[in-house]
Amino acid sequence: MNFNLPFVPERPERPRQSGLTMMMDKGLSLREAENFCEVCAEYTDLVKLGFGTGLLTPNVKEKIKIYQQAGLRPYFGGTLFEAFIARDMLDDYKRFIADAGVETAEVSDGVLPIEHGKKCEYIADLAKDFVVLSEVGTKLKGKEITNEEWVSWMLSELGAGAWKVIAEARESGNMGIYNDDGSANSELVLDIRNHIDPDKILWEAPLKNQQVWFIKLLGPNVNLGNIAENEVIPLETLRRGLRGDTLLSFLP
Amino acid sequence: MNFNLPFVPERPERPRQSGLTMMMDKGLSLREAENFCEVCAEYTDLVKLGFGTGLLTPNVKEKIKIYQQAGLRPYFGGTLFEAFIARDMLDDYKRFIADAGVETAEVSDGVLPIEHGKKCEYIADLAKDFVVLSEVGTKLKGKEITNEEWVSWMLSELGAGAWKVIAEARESGNMGIYNDDGSANSELVLDIRNHIDPDKILWEAPLKNQQVWFIKLLGPNVNLGNIAENEVIPLETLRRGLRGDTLLSFLP
Amino acid sequence: MNFNLPFVPERPERPRQSGLTMMMDKGLSLREAENFCEVCAEYTDLVKLGFGTGLLTPNVKEKIKIYQQAGLRPYFGGTLFEAFIARDMLDDYKRFIADAGVETAEVSDGVLPIEHGKKCEYIADLAKDFVVLSEVGTKLKGKEITNEEWVSWMLSELGAGAWKVIAEARESGNMGIYNDDGSANSELVLDIRNHIDPDKILWEAPLKNQQVWFIKLLGPNVNLGNIAENEVIPLETLRRGLRGDTLLSFLP
Repeated sequence: MNFNLPFVPERPERPRQSGLTMMMDKGLSLREAENFCEVCAEYTDLVKLGFGTGLLTPNVKEKIKIYQQAGLRPYFGGTLFEAFIARDMLDDYKRFIADAGVETAEVSDGVLPIEHGKKCEYIADLAKDFVVLSEVGTKLKGKEITNEEWVSWMLSELGAGAWKVIAEARESGNMGIYNDDGSANSELVLDIRNHIDPDKILWEAPLKNQQVWFIKLLGPNVNLGNIAENEVIPLETLRRGLRGDTLLSFLP
Repeated sequence: MNFNLPFVPERPERPRQSGLTMMMDKGLSLREAENFCEVCAEYTDLVKLGFGTGLLTPNVKEKIKIYQQAGLRPYFGGTLFEAFIARDMLDDYKRFIADAGVETAEVSDGVLPIEHGKKCEYIADLAKDFVVLSEVGTKLKGKEITNEEWVSWMLSELGAGAWKVIAEARESGNMGIYNDDGSANSELVLDIRNHIDPDKILWEAPLKNQQVWFIKLLGPNVNLGNIAENEVIPLETLRRGLRGDTLLSFLP
Repeated sequence: MNFNLPFVPERPERPRQSGLTMMMDKGLSLREAENFCEVCAEYTDLVKLGFGTGLLTPNVKEKIKIYQQAGLRPYFGGTLFEAFIARDMLDDYKRFIADAGVETAEVSDGVLPIEHGKKCEYIADLAKDFVVLSEVGTKLKGKEITNEEWVSWMLSELGAGAWKVIAEARESGNMGIYNDDGSANSELVLDIRNHIDPDKILWEAPLKNQQVWFIKLLGPNVNLGNIAENEVIPLETLRRGLRGDTLLSFLP
């Protein structure tokens, strides 16, 4: 049924460097992971095993294989990294994720305070063995980060070896690059975009209005993350101008 | 376990003309469609393959067959119709949906401006080969429609050959017949009800409070749509007085 | 992958008397129930077949067996009890749930007014043949219950034979022990905690912020209910300090 409708934005083939979609798995079963891959594999690049779920869900190695066989890149969410670091167990973390068979590692300091230079050391260290995603932005209210810090930290984390840098939003979509009501902090986003290659940034955008906002600002091949498993197809319709919000956006 | 509790409202047998439930499929896999049919087929009449998802999900023909074998009526959402019309490809659209094996077609102008007479021509044209659902109401803020226009457009679209006319709400339930906060525009709904046979109207009602409101106003066999796949059973408990909100509504 | 991270709160083994999680099943299919058990059985104790869904979903006996074979305790939600009582059909209700093979019964008066002494008689009667959960709190706005009534009713229902008493919140989490905005009525909760063994209470807490609030107040082994099937694993990460909100809560 792959009908060739004209004026639908081109999407790069996988494996791609832009237009990435990161799905957040909060504890899917093996069959649910298979269901996801059947429908969404073509449209998905990264699967985050959210927060510490990867430590609790049974059959996680089998699930990781299911994703990998579908061409996806599964990895453990940054909160699990922080849980190990908070216990001074970096080497255990490296063994844990290597043993799980993943090739990607996230480095974040969303909750655990990590001095920025130290964070870059973690990135450089993990980058020897893994593709590294690093995340900038706090999960904690009241810990404000200036626009200049956002930009300079993202740049130094990329410089330390991160493949992409993630802009934090939480699962709920009301932190980091978003205001309390979920609307985007557009001044911050524009500041970041003006200083950093947009292909190197993955924006967490769990809510539809946030996805629409980023697609209209940065185009259909913006990198977006924290997408619920049943929202990957709806997001793909947004990227291709096949949903009300973007239906007229890409027509001549 | 089909225990025969007294004072539970009668529901018509399928295929029915009233008491319709339309489920919105945003990209289910084949097994998920089977799961849905196992539990919900008896309580569901229409399955909308929402926005342009039908163009993107693999195995869509197989999924359509699964629904049809369970006695359901799958069809492509109106946004896909608008995507073809915006490209002046009506004939391609007709071939596309016929090739997919569906017997039902939706005509809408939720985003694409279509002159009303032209819309009725589309309805009459498609009604030659398909059961037509037409939709009234915009997805766009600021494009107000008067109550008189709602009523007269619904009547002329039924006159042009629509089987039922759908009252727009979006997936989010805050447009068309609803106010910004999701509450019903009761004056509009009453105006429509007073002028048009309620069996001919299918109200989009994605939120529980909207479903309760319509059941209390128009009875358990009101036609309701844009129901998420895991909300069809909860809706059925509302229709039958088996949930708190309507538990006492149908007792003597 | 059951990596043994230090400083993760201990959780009792099943069958347990505290640290209970009650999942709310709104109409899962057999395969979905199996998927749930694969991932969540170890972390779940009770499965409520919500409102009257148990009367409508096909294969309910098979589903009950799936849950029981995974070591879970399925039961019909209190609204179904009220639907039978409203029709003066207590004996039919007892036969219905016994025939379904469940060993647990909920007694509630969330919508149907039941004089409190009469409610305790129902509890005592059902406690002869079933493990009884009783629920305190109304689903109806405007029917205020004083803190003293909450405490004294909970105590007398436990005295009448209830195994645990449930504090009402509705599926939406904005009634009973919660304010309109979903925040906890902390004065009420503290009053209850100060008078009743917390292990005897199961707090309905469908929203993440509510779960976090209770875990921080009453510890990782607080009994929580009305958890959506895809939120059981995320809740378990909260209980174990493996999610941002509680990541630092249990560290030395």
